[in-house]
Amino acid sequence: MIDISIVQFCPKLFDKKSNINKIEQFIEADKSDLIVFPELATTGYSFITAKEAEEHSDEFNGKIMKRFQEMATRKNKIIVLGFAEKFRTEFYNSAAILFPEKEYSACYRKTHLFYRERFCFSEGNTGFFVVDYKPFDLKLGTMICYDWRFPEAARTLGIKGADIIACPSNLVTNIWHLAMPARAIENKVFLAVANRYGTEEREGQELFFNGDSALWSYNGTLLAVAQKEGDEVLKSSIDPKLTRNKAFNEYNDIFKDRRSNYYA
Amino acid sequence: MIDISIVQFCPKLFDKKSNINKIEQFIEADKSDLIVFPELATTGYSFITAKEAEEHSDEFNGKIMKRFQEMATRKNKIIVLGFAEKFRTEFYNSAAILFPEKEYSACYRKTHLFYRERFCFSEGNTGFFVVDYKPFDLKLGTMICYDWRFPEAARTLGIKGADIIACPSNLVTNIWHLAMPARAIENKVFLAVANRYGTEEREGQELFFNGDSALWSYNGTLLAVAQKEGDEVLKSSIDPKLTRNKAFNEYNDIFKDRRSNYYA
Repeated sequence: MIDISIVQFCPKLFDKKSNINKIEQFIEADKSDLIVFPELATTGYSFITAKEAEEHSDEFNGKIMKRFQEMATRKNKIIVLGFAEKFRTEFYNSAAILFPEKEYSACYRKTHLFYRERFCFSEGNTGFFVVDYKPFDLKLGTMICYDWRFPEAARTLGIKGADIIACPSNLVTNIWHLAMPARAIENKVFLAVANRYGTEEREGQELFFNGDSALWSYNGTLLAVAQKEGDEVLKSSIDPKLTRNKAFNEYNDIFKDRRSNYYA
Repeated sequence: MIDISIVQFCPKLFDKKSNINKIEQFIEADKSDLIVFPELATTGYSFITAKEAEEHSDEFNGKIMKRFQEMATRKNKIIVLGFAEKFRTEFYNSAAILFPEKEYSACYRKTHLFYRERFCFSEGNTGFFVVDYKPFDLKLGTMICYDWRFPEAARTLGIKGADIIACPSNLVTNIWHLAMPARAIENKVFLAVANRYGTEEREGQELFFNGDSALWSYNGTLLAVAQKEGDEVLKSSIDPKLTRNKAFNEYNDIFKDRRSNYYA
């Protein structure tokens, strides 16, 4: 069994010191095997220019992520954490996926950019990948926020063998809760969405992030859900092996039954 | 606006005369522009052998479908009707899509076969297609029952321009209601599921069909839903044009934002 913690909190825009301090407190207090934080958890969301991205971003191999990597190793815990990534001259809306054994650690760059993100970040170029973390016998896929809207994102992770999809998010709509059960069911995967809450205002435009962080079982059942506002850590235990047999009767298997020649 | 009727009823296994009579009564009494019937509505569901399929199937260009075509023309109504199709030496689990103007009429053959269907029917070879019915300014896609489980089915219809997906069904599980809102949202299409109800028993195995026929709006809202049992005609009006602009803010368009290079 894998113990999961999904952290919902409210990052302060461009106050990295405070945010990182808070994230570290959550990790120190946590006893799970896998802890998932929201998108852009170290910086807040409302970047408007590439200059701001440059100013507040961090390298995946840099100092701050190194500190989180050390915590992952010391606490024997997988950490999934949204952050603004600097890589050479590019900036990405990324998720650090930090495993206790560092050689498994990886960085996912958000594939589908939402709203004004395109003025600050480059489109992700890592694609969707699954890390088979042998020490926990866990196959972990990651997507970020607006990726949910594209069935191909979770589908790709499912086909690549994910048991669970971690989804750091800064969701501002209300419709994603209607769609997430399908992402779980159609791929037979667990789905952990860590959403932030609170509001941010930039240039007279207010964004309201709507919390509701949640964990779905592979059969579409909601296992845990947070409030619309407030710091909250959702805790649950899952058996990742339950997702691996995609057959549901003696003749049907949801992956083998695919007929991709007929798909656009 | 397009008036839709979704017919939920309980076909009697292999009693085509009674089923066809009932279907004709529904059509005669109906005042909608588009009427959707369940999967295998003329024959019932539980075929076990190819011999049974041969015995009870009809040609799309045959006598029975010709009668329904005449009704479509006379009543100026689109009819979507599941039936067992004979084509040369093959049998398909198909849907007749009959338009008032006959030259638009087409036959969809179920792409993903469920359970024992593979022993009676060939895998569909039409693929997913959309008919742009000019006289009603309606772009209609069709999928059948178990196709729902594959996001690629509705996705393909969405990309091909469907305003609404008609889904004749004989659904036996309870999870599809959890997933259908995603099919609507992710493609911004209406979704009309005509499910049957009742039970059928073959060789000691009982199948329970669970009704719950429903219409979803393109934003995932349930517009109408039937009971688990009982004859019922769901009626609703939709504006198909509302689905055509896939942008939801000045920078994001759910189809243009797709990055298919990264999809498995």
